[in-house]
Amino acid sequence: MSDKNRTEIDQMGEFGLIDHITRDVKIHHSNTVKGIGDDAAVIDCGDDYMVVSTDMLLEGIHFDLSFMPLQHLGYKAIAVNVSDIAAMNALPEQVTVSIAVTNRFSVEAIDMIYQGINAACKNYNVDLVGGDTTSSRSGLVISVTATGRVAKDKIAYRSGAKKDDIICMSGDVGAAYMGLQVLLREKKVFEADPNMQPKLDDYEYIVGRQLRPEARTDFIHDFRELGIVPTSMIDVSDGVASEILHLCKASNVGAVIYEQKIPVDQRTFDAAHEFNIPSVTPGLNGGEDYELLFTISQDDYKKVEKNPNIYFIGYVDEEPNSARMVTVGEQIVPLSAQGFKHF
Amino acid sequence: MSDKNRTEIDQMGEFGLIDHITRDVKIHHSNTVKGIGDDAAVIDCGDDYMVVSTDMLLEGIHFDLSFMPLQHLGYKAIAVNVSDIAAMNALPEQVTVSIAVTNRFSVEAIDMIYQGINAACKNYNVDLVGGDTTSSRSGLVISVTATGRVAKDKIAYRSGAKKDDIICMSGDVGAAYMGLQVLLREKKVFEADPNMQPKLDDYEYIVGRQLRPEARTDFIHDFRELGIVPTSMIDVSDGVASEILHLCKASNVGAVIYEQKIPVDQRTFDAAHEFNIPSVTPGLNGGEDYELLFTISQDDYKKVEKNPNIYFIGYVDEEPNSARMVTVGEQIVPLSAQGFKHF
Repeated sequence: MSDKNRTEIDQMGEFGLIDHITRDVKIHHSNTVKGIGDDAAVIDCGDDYMVVSTDMLLEGIHFDLSFMPLQHLGYKAIAVNVSDIAAMNALPEQVTVSIAVTNRFSVEAIDMIYQGINAACKNYNVDLVGGDTTSSRSGLVISVTATGRVAKDKIAYRSGAKKDDIICMSGDVGAAYMGLQVLLREKKVFEADPNMQPKLDDYEYIVGRQLRPEARTDFIHDFRELGIVPTSMIDVSDGVASEILHLCKASNVGAVIYEQKIPVDQRTFDAAHEFNIPSVTPGLNGGEDYELLFTISQDDYKKVEKNPNIYFIGYVDEEPNSARMVTVGEQIVPLSAQGFKHF
Repeated sequence: MSDKNRTEIDQMGEFGLIDHITRDVKIHHSNTVKGIGDDAAVIDCGDDYMVVSTDMLLEGIHFDLSFMPLQHLGYKAIAVNVSDIAAMNALPEQVTVSIAVTNRFSVEAIDMIYQGINAACKNYNVDLVGGDTTSSRSGLVISVTATGRVAKDKIAYRSGAKKDDIICMSGDVGAAYMGLQVLLREKKVFEADPNMQPKLDDYEYIVGRQLRPEARTDFIHDFRELGIVPTSMIDVSDGVASEILHLCKASNVGAVIYEQKIPVDQRTFDAAHEFNIPSVTPGLNGGEDYELLFTISQDDYKKVEKNPNIYFIGYVDEEPNSARMVTVGEQIVPLSAQGFKHF
């Protein structure tokens, strides 16, 4: 029986649904500088901007407790929000953490989650200032809101990329995606025969990237020291292709990137080969690496050209809302967003 | 089989668990003015303070979709957070909304939730500035973070109550609790015989207080006009007894309240009578009314003594961390916190 008045969520997809929900949202306060549509909201706060970002992680959707240690989960919940703050060129300062647990969790289990939360707060120098603790009928839910601060002249939006800007990355991508594939495979092996112990030693790097990603706040400090403000920035949570398209759309520009310049670790390539996954897939469409993808003006290039920590992967051009990749075989292919399908 | 290393959450209770989790939390940023322990965190923001509060609502724990209309749920999710902002004597300005839904929800159902969210944002004059939309394996989850602003000399903490201050309330309590009892009863009737239609007409007031509570931001405007800053304030989410004990503990004072002065609507009394619930229970231990409970200094009493919208229910004394009630029968009984048991 079909219901003509019912639209399924997966007909729209995650980004379509967000566009749909937010179509009528209007901003009334003069101190709301930026609302929906970037990595974080921006609020005028005297001399500085305050940026605010929020993320909710649900068991069975965003994490699988059969292979995700509770400490790492707590750490990751903070790191992914801090990453959104960094993507605005801001430094994080406060977080609130709301957590819902079923009664299968003991106090000791909750302590392990908070060990990870506290370790991340210490590492990123953020204060845990509030939250909510409640019970859940089903799985574990963690919702984090992070605030950060940035001088008004240093904020980086998704929307500032200009023709001829250089597209840069803070580190290698695709490892978290391949780490997840290894974890899912070992889980299946274990489920089939509980006497089999997971073999993860050979995959330490990529599994670590999945289980305990780091937000690149170190780059925000580097930008200050180098005297650079990225013209646009976003963090790679859904995959390089998807994020580049976000920057192009927000900035009303186009982009050209080079396949061979996308930083992918050899261990990620090796795992992709083992899994018969096309070698371009993890780097382009793998998510959850939380590296920064940003553009700098040509004028700033000389300040960073010899910096070994920055990867230059392409340039901005004028073709609006279009991103293309020059493959290793020197073909030009359009990029399409895969993102993560949660629905 | 007992596990000596396992502590059950319900051995600790909600407040015990929060104390346990937050025992090692330290504040590092000089602009973090107040962390965990009040209705909202407080962040220095130039001339003003910014206050930040967060709440997570889960299906089956905080709401029951068999009688909670989706629009009202959206409205309530905003209202309860705005109420926390008001409890700091601040006015709300921004909210972020994260929502997780199962695929039994259609786009039209999500639209209904957002109709309520948008109506609340309009009513409380707040901007919806961000959030997260994801899928859920089980129930609906809504997590809201609200920010607000207050001049530094007007902030109200839980901790400022002084001896001889007058304890006040912004409106009647217990109605939301009795409304919930009615809704639960009608649900049972309906489950037993689906041909029975719920009889809610006679309970419009108390059911409305449960399904669509309002945050008392109007009082924050009134305080400005009256030239009053409450010496302490909290919103009544868990019940008057519990909230008074929070104020006493934070302020290191005691309190005496009068049973007959607690504002309880006649319709709430009537429903309690019908349900054979002691008439004192809803007013003292019923939660979710989201009225403001606050103290003012004797010096400010003359500014409000004839204000028909403020209820004076008792006074602060010096006995630390102890609250007592003078009953209608003129007995003195100690107050104990019932709160809401989520676990």
